[in-house]
Amino acid sequence: MKLVTFSNEGFKRIGALYPNDEIVDLNYAYQSFLESEGKLRSVQIANAYVPSSMVDFLQGGKESMAIAKKAADYAIDNRDSFRHKLIHAMEDIKLEAPVQNPGKIICVGQNYREHIAEMGRELPLFPVVFAKYTNAVIGPQDDIPFFPISEQLDYEAEFAFVIGQRTRQVSQEDALDYVAGYTIANDVTYRDIQRRTIEWLQGKTVDGSAPMGPWLVTSDELPDPSGLHVRLTVNGEERQKTNTSNFVFDVKYLIEFLSNLMTLEPGDIVLTGTPGGVGFARSPQVFLKDGDVVKIEIDKIGYLENRVRRVGEGK
Amino acid sequence: MKLVTFSNEGFKRIGALYPNDEIVDLNYAYQSFLESEGKLRSVQIANAYVPSSMVDFLQGGKESMAIAKKAADYAIDNRDSFRHKLIHAMEDIKLEAPVQNPGKIICVGQNYREHIAEMGRELPLFPVVFAKYTNAVIGPQDDIPFFPISEQLDYEAEFAFVIGQRTRQVSQEDALDYVAGYTIANDVTYRDIQRRTIEWLQGKTVDGSAPMGPWLVTSDELPDPSGLHVRLTVNGEERQKTNTSNFVFDVKYLIEFLSNLMTLEPGDIVLTGTPGGVGFARSPQVFLKDGDVVKIEIDKIGYLENRVRRVGEGK
Repeated sequence: MKLVTFSNEGFKRIGALYPNDEIVDLNYAYQSFLESEGKLRSVQIANAYVPSSMVDFLQGGKESMAIAKKAADYAIDNRDSFRHKLIHAMEDIKLEAPVQNPGKIICVGQNYREHIAEMGRELPLFPVVFAKYTNAVIGPQDDIPFFPISEQLDYEAEFAFVIGQRTRQVSQEDALDYVAGYTIANDVTYRDIQRRTIEWLQGKTVDGSAPMGPWLVTSDELPDPSGLHVRLTVNGEERQKTNTSNFVFDVKYLIEFLSNLMTLEPGDIVLTGTPGGVGFARSPQVFLKDGDVVKIEIDKIGYLENRVRRVGEGK
Repeated sequence: MKLVTFSNEGFKRIGALYPNDEIVDLNYAYQSFLESEGKLRSVQIANAYVPSSMVDFLQGGKESMAIAKKAADYAIDNRDSFRHKLIHAMEDIKLEAPVQNPGKIICVGQNYREHIAEMGRELPLFPVVFAKYTNAVIGPQDDIPFFPISEQLDYEAEFAFVIGQRTRQVSQEDALDYVAGYTIANDVTYRDIQRRTIEWLQGKTVDGSAPMGPWLVTSDELPDPSGLHVRLTVNGEERQKTNTSNFVFDVKYLIEFLSNLMTLEPGDIVLTGTPGGVGFARSPQVFLKDGDVVKIEIDKIGYLENRVRRVGEGK
């Protein structure tokens, strides 16, 4: 499935994307299915197994995933069977970041050979990891706010995966079983703020600096995360281009590595690093400006496109 | 007030510490008060204003704080007025970390002049900030798990503050209005893991490496966070000693600084940095071992004491 979080009439809910850009409301779909079976506790059962927020839903693991798929198929065939709208046209809703409140946003740095070279660094022996907080998360239809705290706003195209089961100390061989799915992220960075101290966090977690989406491609649909082309353009001009086969540390390795340090939880999202071509490393350097459109395309997922918008506040 | 999170019979709930080590269950106290006024919706109103988890409670701001205080005083005077137990003796409950699921754990590095000197670094122009994730949080009665992933387990005594109101871009003058209260934290660090890459996160957020507590001293009770003695002992031997007046960047400065980068939310916790005397910087170096007892004392708060316990898992 392609899982989305969407907003409609002030509610944020999860859905599945179907052909013809139709979005099935998964919680309502399961309520409807349960009602068709005569269940009087349909709302409560649906809220338990297919809740309307992504982290809660992912906590249900493969059981909830299977139920949601069955319910969505039911809704497609019985689209007028329920008192709430089961299926939305894409143009009637707003797509949000697929995971709204991830417990962890774990970012990997220096994970493509060519990016390491352009930054003038050596190949790492261990993954370099740093954090963003959830204040950074925005969706595929949001603008990237550009606060006047710096002139060096930069993009970083990233392939991201989302954890689907709690795990600690999983081996590489089993690691992909713990992935719920994959998405696209832009590790937006205020480059001078990142580099003014030895820890990058402060330039990485400014409000709105983690655009993500447009959806989560579940791992049953994308069983092998290697060999995917990644491409970033600014106003249509290519700036970054790589393939997930160029990772120093691949998805399996990262899951083993991270799970030996910390318990990973459903909804935790890992940004796997960016390739060469960031604005800071270009000659001459070029940074994002108001109105720029940053588009990241990744094979088998789709694209994430956001416009940069100067905002007046800040000092 | 001194606000705690405690567990009792499998439930984690918030309370206020009263003299004689009595802990008032704040949510039940308010339910009881509302019932005494004949409110039929007492449970729902209490859950709205004085919910049983700290982050939810702090979202209610000063209004909820005032209601909780009034309700706790009522419960002390009417201790047998409710169907659930309103007041617990300290020995009957377990104290947990006061904030169970902070949205952000923001750590400041290099914030005491003497610690910067011992680490061989220069005085920073900007606060150095890094993160821990919530998997690290443990309470004052938990052991610090020592995973066999390193031999360099180290302590860091830290004065911590908790945000009480959503804020972005607050000035230093107004900053303390946004603090809910203060507590003690141990920024437990696997020193070699911290230092094996240029970003510290991986050595900082191992499960159980953020002991916090024993309670949150609300800012009305501790209006000035400067001038507090901080002292850390290992098995009774003094290892760190400083005063919050020795900060490079004080609480007000940090709030202004951080709120210019990111929106701060109720429950966000900021660890303000550690003074000199960490094990890594001693000559000879000395690290924590199984059974060691680490105690951090801070004026006007109390102490946080945890035992180190080797755990078998890990590779």
